[in-house]
Amino acid sequence: MKNQSLTEQLKGSTLFPSSRKIYVEGSRPDIRVPMREISLSPFTDKQGVNHPNEPIYVYDTSGVYTDPSYTINIKEGLPKLRQQWIAERADVEERSNLSSEYGQIRQADTKLDAIRYPNVNTRPLRAKADKVPTQYFYAKQGLITPEMEYVAIRENQNLGRMNEGRATKIESYITPEFVRQEIAAGRAMIPCNINHPECEPMIIGSKFRVKINANIGNSALSSGIQEEIDKAVWAMIWGSDTVMDLSTGDNIHETREWIIRNSPVPIGTVPLYQALEKVNGKVEDLTWEIYRDTLIEQAEQGVDYFTIHAGLLRDHVELTNKRMTGIVSRGGAIMAKWSMIHDQENFLYTHFDEICEILAAYDVAVSLGDGLRPGSVYDANDEAQFAELRVLGELTHKARAAHVQVLIEGPGHVPVHKIKENVELQQEVCDNAPFYVLGPLTTDIAPGYDHITSAIGGAIIGAHGVAMLCYVTQKEHLGLPNREDVKQAVITYKLAAHAADLAKGFPGAQLHDDAMSKARFEFRWEDQFALALDPQTAIQFHDETLPNDENKKTHFCSMCGDNFCSMKSSHEIRNMKSGKQHGPCQHRNEAVEETINAQE
Amino acid sequence: MKNQSLTEQLKGSTLFPSSRKIYVEGSRPDIRVPMREISLSPFTDKQGVNHPNEPIYVYDTSGVYTDPSYTINIKEGLPKLRQQWIAERADVEERSNLSSEYGQIRQADTKLDAIRYPNVNTRPLRAKADKVPTQYFYAKQGLITPEMEYVAIRENQNLGRMNEGRATKIESYITPEFVRQEIAAGRAMIPCNINHPECEPMIIGSKFRVKINANIGNSALSSGIQEEIDKAVWAMIWGSDTVMDLSTGDNIHETREWIIRNSPVPIGTVPLYQALEKVNGKVEDLTWEIYRDTLIEQAEQGVDYFTIHAGLLRDHVELTNKRMTGIVSRGGAIMAKWSMIHDQENFLYTHFDEICEILAAYDVAVSLGDGLRPGSVYDANDEAQFAELRVLGELTHKARAAHVQVLIEGPGHVPVHKIKENVELQQEVCDNAPFYVLGPLTTDIAPGYDHITSAIGGAIIGAHGVAMLCYVTQKEHLGLPNREDVKQAVITYKLAAHAADLAKGFPGAQLHDDAMSKARFEFRWEDQFALALDPQTAIQFHDETLPNDENKKTHFCSMCGDNFCSMKSSHEIRNMKSGKQHGPCQHRNEAVEETINAQE
Repeated sequence: MKNQSLTEQLKGSTLFPSSRKIYVEGSRPDIRVPMREISLSPFTDKQGVNHPNEPIYVYDTSGVYTDPSYTINIKEGLPKLRQQWIAERADVEERSNLSSEYGQIRQADTKLDAIRYPNVNTRPLRAKADKVPTQYFYAKQGLITPEMEYVAIRENQNLGRMNEGRATKIESYITPEFVRQEIAAGRAMIPCNINHPECEPMIIGSKFRVKINANIGNSALSSGIQEEIDKAVWAMIWGSDTVMDLSTGDNIHETREWIIRNSPVPIGTVPLYQALEKVNGKVEDLTWEIYRDTLIEQAEQGVDYFTIHAGLLRDHVELTNKRMTGIVSRGGAIMAKWSMIHDQENFLYTHFDEICEILAAYDVAVSLGDGLRPGSVYDANDEAQFAELRVLGELTHKARAAHVQVLIEGPGHVPVHKIKENVELQQEVCDNAPFYVLGPLTTDIAPGYDHITSAIGGAIIGAHGVAMLCYVTQKEHLGLPNREDVKQAVITYKLAAHAADLAKGFPGAQLHDDAMSKARFEFRWEDQFALALDPQTAIQFHDETLPNDENKKTHFCSMCGDNFCSMKSSHEIRNMKSGKQHGPCQHRNEAVEETINAQE
Repeated sequence: MKNQSLTEQLKGSTLFPSSRKIYVEGSRPDIRVPMREISLSPFTDKQGVNHPNEPIYVYDTSGVYTDPSYTINIKEGLPKLRQQWIAERADVEERSNLSSEYGQIRQADTKLDAIRYPNVNTRPLRAKADKVPTQYFYAKQGLITPEMEYVAIRENQNLGRMNEGRATKIESYITPEFVRQEIAAGRAMIPCNINHPECEPMIIGSKFRVKINANIGNSALSSGIQEEIDKAVWAMIWGSDTVMDLSTGDNIHETREWIIRNSPVPIGTVPLYQALEKVNGKVEDLTWEIYRDTLIEQAEQGVDYFTIHAGLLRDHVELTNKRMTGIVSRGGAIMAKWSMIHDQENFLYTHFDEICEILAAYDVAVSLGDGLRPGSVYDANDEAQFAELRVLGELTHKARAAHVQVLIEGPGHVPVHKIKENVELQQEVCDNAPFYVLGPLTTDIAPGYDHITSAIGGAIIGAHGVAMLCYVTQKEHLGLPNREDVKQAVITYKLAAHAADLAKGFPGAQLHDDAMSKARFEFRWEDQFALALDPQTAIQFHDETLPNDENKKTHFCSMCGDNFCSMKSSHEIRNMKSGKQHGPCQHRNEAVEETINAQE
């Protein structure tokens, strides 16, 4: 498959120069948390004395795809790192067969063998009777799971110095117990279905690093299985923390299986899309039973979170009549239409307790969809949007009562001055459940650049405490993103999320910036490239102006040239002042120390 | 010249589909304010009845380059639209020769004839004795100049409906008298040298549209005259409100002449760069006399604003020792080095009164440079930066006393949570003089994407009241931007500035967004492209997925396909509710009316 060639490509690749994958071990040997270590070269002063620069450790979402010791075989799937942890808790049991009718039909259909993932597990896990295998339930019981310890180590990652004396002190901010408390309070969640043991745990909550999600998925018009797997892996390599598979075309059951088995990051879906496919796109034919079967089908494949548009009530539809752009959420439009056709309340709302029961049995998190999110600046923060948000608050409490982990979805298109109100209202009515927003886009006039109109909103809303940003690609409003679009959007959202982490004062976040700035001041060009979110683009841009390798050692750059290099002058000025011939190295290490101390 | 081919290219171009250039006449026939009118197609309802959509008028910085009735000849330069206005005020006189020694030497050098602009005006204008030809002085005297009326009409531009009954009512916000008051208070300025009569007046101030500046200029290492002119015109076509020529290589005097004679937007420079070239890059050889001669040389060519790093005092240099990245402003580094070498105060500070005298004689605005702007997140808002800012406040008052128009320059690299403090302190110490900032970049870790890291900061700081944003290209920190980089950065900054205008509630700004959103909801694809900041990119992205023209009429798009199109469903839902078969058109025109009313 094409994906194999992607992973083959990655093997010998120099996507991330000066980097190696390391694992930090937790309290037991099977807790091994991945990080990317970026080695930095020393600063050489005028006397030729080398002053070392410590490596930087960065958060690593790429799984074994960037582990040279591991041989990728997408037909076998990824290592099941959580299998033992799940088994040890002894609260789940294997089913004798797939529980969903649809899953059974697809499995029995030999015509699908050619495109089917070859090792489908037909004995999925489910909670034992009266047991609740959710991280939220464990946290409330006071249990610190391996997943919680894993994310605690992972969140501290970028602080670097993990193997040194400082680690203990720095870890005092995000400890496993702190993680447990945040989850128990419903302020954070770890999306990790018991049927997705390949998932490397990650946490979503306002007190943790801002996360990003990449949407992939074929529509009826375009794209195939291979391309979607490629895009998913590509998104993870560049830093996507979760991936949503929004496929609506053919064979979405089989596509999903391939993706989950090969995904080290949590996978989210909107089950309603597949339910609609099952009734041939006829909204009027949708039923609770078909939807319910779809939830079970996907839960047993290992989907980690479901977007469920249960908050859009029949009475809300009328509120959208004043809008510029009506209903722009696919799921929202489907349920609004269903309600209108049948003159009945949204069945996702009326069956919400049963939904929660299913979700709890697999530890699938609910991501309460915002079917009435604004699709234009004009519609931002309107009555329809906030009416639905208040219902999401009500549903948050219901889900929590069923021990289900909760995310709340948010907009959309929101101008800069209306962003804060969204976060404040969400935190109030949803009791600080983690907020997960799309962008938001801060203007409507730049199609082709909506990764940027929305990264502006993303950085601002992240700084206000939003826990995860769903990316928007430059193709938004125009077409389906290709692999390069996915990469551009992931990098754009990584930088927006990081800007938000800095604004939140997230411990250690600034170390990465400081390492980059120190490398700039010391003219360590190779280190600047290695520290960049996208090293190859940085190298390419540099080489366009100054192509040869010698120019990666110059103490100036092509932007200003030798005489006009301000940093070069700064060095000269410092030497003049001190009367000594020392470099800036000592000062700079002090600066990094100060950053650490200030954030502790 | 290559530039000619650019303008030739533009002639038959479809860069801006459905658009035509119009001029709105003011109180006298030679006040003709350019706008781009975008025609929109009607919405056709299910009964086949057409509901018209009014055209949208957008701010147009492209000068006659997009006027099909005008034949560009860069050897003759642009029409001198301000010549008469300047003459009428009878406060300036022609010099008998160029006043600067350097200007005379270059003019006499026949070796330069081959690269020289052929019609250099060797009889530049200067103030008559005891006269002050600055817009600031006029405003304080209560005089409304044609320039002020011009910008008043221009600022109201995007409100549309300029030729209809609404115009008067809308204009009550930004009237010529309001413009005069803002300039008289020092809160706004119109950069327009009396020797740049080709300049189409524009205003910079917190109560007006947020403006953007594009930097161009060759360094000693790269780029030539033709390429720089090309880049300047290209930047204006995409929406740059001013252009700074930061050339530091050969023949910068001649390059500048070509650019100014062909520029409909104000041109800024940093005279110190050329002064340093004159002493062969040896900072120690810089003198006040050489700098002074450079000011006069450039003022007589028609430069509209000078960046002058007069606020960086000798005592500030020590404050940069604690920094991560020292001094990153080229001008700042030069003056700091000069001060240290000579153990003297910055001569731009000690000679500031004489500088102001020269500037006032030509109505060159001073842009007080921030030589100590932070070059890293670590250095943001530090003692050095704010110590210099306080001196800029002192200099603001000195410049105002000399009737010189003032801009204040700001950072740089600033994380999201430290942005607001910059604006608050600047407004306080500089008595609300317009603030002009570079970005700011909100993180250091994304070289190759710094147009985005900085557009985030730009939108936020613009919303806080910054009047003009200096763009940052994706090549920042890496190399010199090419033409495509310039375009990308201009579009990125246009959208950031527009996001800030929306946040400020600038009258009429949202009409553009509303027109786009209405076009989206009504599936008017061609109108969506025409309304986009970059129509060709939008079309290209659309056509990648759905290439043929038929697909520009579909009532869904490739992102979701037919069954999953939420907007299509929205229409169906509305029809179901009302029981009538009407389209959304009526509602939508009401929505646009509401936007106008809310902002009035």
